[in-house]
Amino acid sequence: MPSFKQKIVNDPVHGFITIPNALAFELIEHRWLQRLRNIKQLGLSYLVYPGAVHNRFQHTLGAMHLMTQAIQVLKEKGIEITSEEEEGAIAAILLHDLGHGPYSHALEHSFSKKTSHELLSMAFMNQLNRELGGRLDMAIAIFSNQYSKKFLHQLVSSQLDVDRLDYLRRDSFFSGVAEGTIGLERIIKMLYVASDELVVEAKGIYSIEKFLIARRMMYWQVYLHKTVVGAEQMLIAILHRARELVEQRIPIASSPRLHFFLSGRTELEPIESWLDMFASLDDSDIALAIKDWMNHPDTTLADMCCRLNNRRLLHVELSGTPFSQERVALVKEICRNRMNLSDVHTGYLCFAGEVTNSFYNPKQETIKILFKNNRLEDIYTASEMLNHSALGNTVKKYFFCYPKEIVGWI
Amino acid sequence: MPSFKQKIVNDPVHGFITIPNALAFELIEHRWLQRLRNIKQLGLSYLVYPGAVHNRFQHTLGAMHLMTQAIQVLKEKGIEITSEEEEGAIAAILLHDLGHGPYSHALEHSFSKKTSHELLSMAFMNQLNRELGGRLDMAIAIFSNQYSKKFLHQLVSSQLDVDRLDYLRRDSFFSGVAEGTIGLERIIKMLYVASDELVVEAKGIYSIEKFLIARRMMYWQVYLHKTVVGAEQMLIAILHRARELVEQRIPIASSPRLHFFLSGRTELEPIESWLDMFASLDDSDIALAIKDWMNHPDTTLADMCCRLNNRRLLHVELSGTPFSQERVALVKEICRNRMNLSDVHTGYLCFAGEVTNSFYNPKQETIKILFKNNRLEDIYTASEMLNHSALGNTVKKYFFCYPKEIVGWI
Amino acid sequence: MPSFKQKIVNDPVHGFITIPNALAFELIEHRWLQRLRNIKQLGLSYLVYPGAVHNRFQHTLGAMHLMTQAIQVLKEKGIEITSEEEEGAIAAILLHDLGHGPYSHALEHSFSKKTSHELLSMAFMNQLNRELGGRLDMAIAIFSNQYSKKFLHQLVSSQLDVDRLDYLRRDSFFSGVAEGTIGLERIIKMLYVASDELVVEAKGIYSIEKFLIARRMMYWQVYLHKTVVGAEQMLIAILHRARELVEQRIPIASSPRLHFFLSGRTELEPIESWLDMFASLDDSDIALAIKDWMNHPDTTLADMCCRLNNRRLLHVELSGTPFSQERVALVKEICRNRMNLSDVHTGYLCFAGEVTNSFYNPKQETIKILFKNNRLEDIYTASEMLNHSALGNTVKKYFFCYPKEIVGWI
Amino acid sequence: MPSFKQKIVNDPVHGFITIPNALAFELIEHRWLQRLRNIKQLGLSYLVYPGAVHNRFQHTLGAMHLMTQAIQVLKEKGIEITSEEEEGAIAAILLHDLGHGPYSHALEHSFSKKTSHELLSMAFMNQLNRELGGRLDMAIAIFSNQYSKKFLHQLVSSQLDVDRLDYLRRDSFFSGVAEGTIGLERIIKMLYVASDELVVEAKGIYSIEKFLIARRMMYWQVYLHKTVVGAEQMLIAILHRARELVEQRIPIASSPRLHFFLSGRTELEPIESWLDMFASLDDSDIALAIKDWMNHPDTTLADMCCRLNNRRLLHVELSGTPFSQERVALVKEICRNRMNLSDVHTGYLCFAGEVTNSFYNPKQETIKILFKNNRLEDIYTASEMLNHSALGNTVKKYFFCYPKEIVGWI
Repeated sequence: MPSFKQKIVNDPVHGFITIPNALAFELIEHRWLQRLRNIKQLGLSYLVYPGAVHNRFQHTLGAMHLMTQAIQVLKEKGIEITSEEEEGAIAAILLHDLGHGPYSHALEHSFSKKTSHELLSMAFMNQLNRELGGRLDMAIAIFSNQYSKKFLHQLVSSQLDVDRLDYLRRDSFFSGVAEGTIGLERIIKMLYVASDELVVEAKGIYSIEKFLIARRMMYWQVYLHKTVVGAEQMLIAILHRARELVEQRIPIASSPRLHFFLSGRTELEPIESWLDMFASLDDSDIALAIKDWMNHPDTTLADMCCRLNNRRLLHVELSGTPFSQERVALVKEICRNRMNLSDVHTGYLCFAGEVTNSFYNPKQETIKILFKNNRLEDIYTASEMLNHSALGNTVKKYFFCYPKEIVGWI
Repeated sequence: MPSFKQKIVNDPVHGFITIPNALAFELIEHRWLQRLRNIKQLGLSYLVYPGAVHNRFQHTLGAMHLMTQAIQVLKEKGIEITSEEEEGAIAAILLHDLGHGPYSHALEHSFSKKTSHELLSMAFMNQLNRELGGRLDMAIAIFSNQYSKKFLHQLVSSQLDVDRLDYLRRDSFFSGVAEGTIGLERIIKMLYVASDELVVEAKGIYSIEKFLIARRMMYWQVYLHKTVVGAEQMLIAILHRARELVEQRIPIASSPRLHFFLSGRTELEPIESWLDMFASLDDSDIALAIKDWMNHPDTTLADMCCRLNNRRLLHVELSGTPFSQERVALVKEICRNRMNLSDVHTGYLCFAGEVTNSFYNPKQETIKILFKNNRLEDIYTASEMLNHSALGNTVKKYFFCYPKEIVGWI
Repeated sequence: MPSFKQKIVNDPVHGFITIPNALAFELIEHRWLQRLRNIKQLGLSYLVYPGAVHNRFQHTLGAMHLMTQAIQVLKEKGIEITSEEEEGAIAAILLHDLGHGPYSHALEHSFSKKTSHELLSMAFMNQLNRELGGRLDMAIAIFSNQYSKKFLHQLVSSQLDVDRLDYLRRDSFFSGVAEGTIGLERIIKMLYVASDELVVEAKGIYSIEKFLIARRMMYWQVYLHKTVVGAEQMLIAILHRARELVEQRIPIASSPRLHFFLSGRTELEPIESWLDMFASLDDSDIALAIKDWMNHPDTTLADMCCRLNNRRLLHVELSGTPFSQERVALVKEICRNRMNLSDVHTGYLCFAGEVTNSFYNPKQETIKILFKNNRLEDIYTASEMLNHSALGNTVKKYFFCYPKEIVGWI
Repeated sequence: MPSFKQKIVNDPVHGFITIPNALAFELIEHRWLQRLRNIKQLGLSYLVYPGAVHNRFQHTLGAMHLMTQAIQVLKEKGIEITSEEEEGAIAAILLHDLGHGPYSHALEHSFSKKTSHELLSMAFMNQLNRELGGRLDMAIAIFSNQYSKKFLHQLVSSQLDVDRLDYLRRDSFFSGVAEGTIGLERIIKMLYVASDELVVEAKGIYSIEKFLIARRMMYWQVYLHKTVVGAEQMLIAILHRARELVEQRIPIASSPRLHFFLSGRTELEPIESWLDMFASLDDSDIALAIKDWMNHPDTTLADMCCRLNNRRLLHVELSGTPFSQERVALVKEICRNRMNLSDVHTGYLCFAGEVTNSFYNPKQETIKILFKNNRLEDIYTASEMLNHSALGNTVKKYFFCYPKEIVGWI
């Protein structure tokens, strides 16, 4: 037997996941990775899709599994990948989500406006690398696209990275939205490297078409489902209100960790100084605060928390064009009068805004198809079906939320 | 269209679940049912099976779905079930899990020694029935086995109730333990009623064999997995320690809800008086307390919370026979000396005990098979394979937990 | 129990299929339906997709199952469907494929140029109706769109009929082409009837998009896979050659049934006179003839049969534009010279032609989506994604087949 | 890229199957392997399980796939397997089923009493090895257990060989009998080699229990399903009758191949002399003969062929004890009188006999479990559940078949 005794983990999505090497095992055991168990992959989507309660820890293991498979496929096709590079790519994908905070994307900017989960992941990786005496040098080089073999970075972060291959499959699986299922196995079997780029062999073109369509369906059916959008906007608003109260020095129950972030000190201090504090924050801090705040004297805060906690969600309209200011003002007026609310309270219950799919998908480069004679072509021109489509574009949607109680009056 | 507009919910296990009537819809919307979203079905099993983070809300919807199907099968076979009875049976199954507290079975007796989740469910149902002006009379009669058609109660609670049909399938699905998969569809198609008893048609006998074997496998691979047992014993010990500190009037951070239960007042006051308090308690109260207590001055509590939160679990031995007092004493001695711990602390890290499968499965009546000529036979005599087996018996296992740090010294 | 004892059949695609009534049971037992067991659903596709050996009998049961489900969904939504109509619609779908001959579509016009499988199905139904004393009157009215409730016919034959819902799912399942999977359950749950038309509720729009895309993928990956097209053209050519030999009075081994059809008498006599003969012909007659003809003195016939039987298939080029006559002539010339063949033999091994997806899909009406306020809209305008696409159009492809032996010379 | 361009085949059971090397590719292209496409894996089981029409070609590819996986798992655990050995083991499994004739086991002894499919497979392998200039030497050594590394033979043929791992999974998949599903992936991950024996790591014990139970269920639900047993006995009887007629020089239509085997010349001549003839025989020869014989002047033959072809099967009783001669005689008497049949005809329609599971499973050695300290234990003592069970024993069942027409008279 090899010196490292392989561990196997059961995963409902991929079956058995083998932890491929000792470094991977150490990282998985680390408290920062374990913390991802307490951060739901899809935020509040479970309010619409009850099964979607999976977390970033499972996703991280899944992405590691796909990375291991993709590397093996490439090696079998003759692409040179050293075991050091393999270890590095696997470590990079294991750590890529460390920077996510409670409820993932929904609250990404609620704790610190000046950063993003990618920047935080980078900070965590650098800190870990110091702890581990440089054993993550390769992983960091790959993650930050500094490494010579560019395709390794593309496995971690690109239109076809193992991150999104796992999350699309996993989100589809747990939400029960079969339309989002992708032909994972075939896509991975079709990967290849040409001109140091991760590409897809021509006979994989239908699988890529299917992948892009499934991705789009997941956006509209799950990620940007109007009820989910409404619930996440409520959550953002609740934290916004809590922060206002803290600024006004109004006492508000919260865990020491959450209190720190509500205080706004993250805007003033460097990431490194509050990294540990961030690492202690997860979904439960928010969930408990919302339960506590249901009885807060501030009626705006209390009302919103009651609604969210008991799933009395707002009514949401979703549209391809912005809502007119007149209509928004009119509905606010109706809301204020019918429900006898303050201006502030009304503003928190009636609001318009916009969402785009790009918040989940910011990487805009394309997928390359490898034809005979080593010709590379962009999927959007290579595919007959996608030829005139707009599947790749960022789509912006406009939402307008207001209480269900006034739906009959509008 | 019928007056009640049917709602459909996506479920990864059963596909689409239709909410069958208006009462069911009202109950599902109720905050007490919504609360089950925050109570994991399998407690701490997710520390071993990362996917097993599903909750009692999903399970409740799934059990409702199976109830609807089972009733339809019986009706198609000519069993008379009125729509009032159907509504009652569905309501009963929707409410059957209301009495579960945080982490389900693991902490069942940590908040109140004198009660059980069944008693609490009953209390919730009675309270709800008052709110709903008696609309749950039929549901309560069925749930408490007061109703004339006994088989309706058996659909809610028996060896073949839709409760366990759903949870076995669901727990298998989310844990990724394929060995636990049961032939749900076929079992339900084979249900029948004879002599007012829920029975299985003879040609369904293999499916029942498979069901009993799958159930047993789930016990040993998931429900009584030794690492899970060890983690749940730690959780129980943590709450026990917290309660000791409260009794000693040592300050300890906790949500108002959790604080109430740690205070021991439940032992003195009637269930009805603290039902609402109980209904506000869920997994997040415990998860947050554990994070907070990682820094508590009591080193015993703090140490255990750090271990559990960061998944540095105890080493667990599992055995069919009790561990000798000598061995336990010896290991404790090694632990105390090697780790330089107090007696109390040692007692919390080294401990032996027992678990049985019956805590999850207290219903001891059997499954009846219906043969030609209306002969009924017990599955354990009807089945060639199970003939001499002990699949149905309560099995007791003995565990012995101690820190991994001392494994090398033992 | 009801007088008709329900039978259950295991189906790997849908799980358990219940035979819903006595007439359905009688029809399924009939030798004409049993014969469909010997007719592969996908002709020679199994030469590329080894799993695709399923037959029209399984498909027929599957379509019956979906019909039963669809009717139940509609009834639950308040659409009136009498039990006589239900029985009729189920009988119609059970009989819809009776007219298929060996290898389904591939040989559709090899046995009789003047007819089609639909006409033959109709002839079989009329004959059966006489046997059954008019019990199929309703089924025939629905099948031939003479019945007042038009939506019943649409369940049997339209863009969303249960025929194609089953075959797309089934062909995807057995071929292992996951890209063709459709959200069957959801589509059926979303069916409704408006203005006596079968429509889809608006919230089912994504499922319909997915369905149309999956259908297209099945065309290109399975139904019109170039190797399959090549093999089927070989099969057609083999039967064509056999017929030529029969016309030239050259002896050729064949079953009495096959001999009848090779003799060309079908062109002269009415369908009714040879219906029973047709009903006795299935895949095995052709398979055996090909084995026998491997040793026929006619080298053209023998060579083609050896190639097909041993899977030494032709090389196939597939293109969106026709192949030039010059190129075809040139390749034929190379083939004749290099392989030293006669003109006739060359013509049977090198040939160009065209295929369209419409041979599998001749029904050109559209799918209607039902929006609020009872507005109906065509899916191709209702869907953002399909808006500018050509998914619905008939696509014509051009093929050019020649022996693999000469690929290196071209 | 490596010199051998890997081919990928879609398989509905395992997903994508990669053909691992050039020799494997050559073998798969060979007409003897292609012939397995025309031999159903489960004989006449499709008359009860309509989906079970899969063939030995698919199974062979599946077994090759599992062999590739098993070898990779073992190599990753440090077991030395050279690429020559790997190629040999893969070739051995590809060829292991060549000796199967039409309808697999059902007719195993209908064409030649003195041989078995194993002996025939061996003869085919030797012949092929001559064609291939000794490239199958290793494969043959492994297949015939002459090779030094015994565990390689066990992968091809033992209680845990990849043959049965594939067929149990595949037969369960296509029949739709979910109870037969096995945890294939986990079993393969748990394989190991100790003392040159193929063993299973202790933590795989539940999967092996499940495997043994699933196997047993497949026996009773599929392989020895009473209706299937009855149909296969009819088929055997039909061929027996045909042979009698040939012996009596009564003309009987049949393909030249089938005619050869009906003539009984196989009993006189060495296997090698009729190997090619055997290789040309498949299910279609039998299927067509049965259709032809439906009109044969011998009423016994004609009647049985009509019954089988039109699925008017015999009534079958199955029992754990033999049927008394008195009862059999009595029923024959009733049959003869009520149906007005000849003695011979009656004997062909009413008959008793026995079947055992061992015809499908002749290998009686056991499965070894590897515990810590390298202790090996037999699964039947290692497993708590199987401890007192008889799952491993050969089970004999007695059947009694007679026409359904007389059921009411008995």
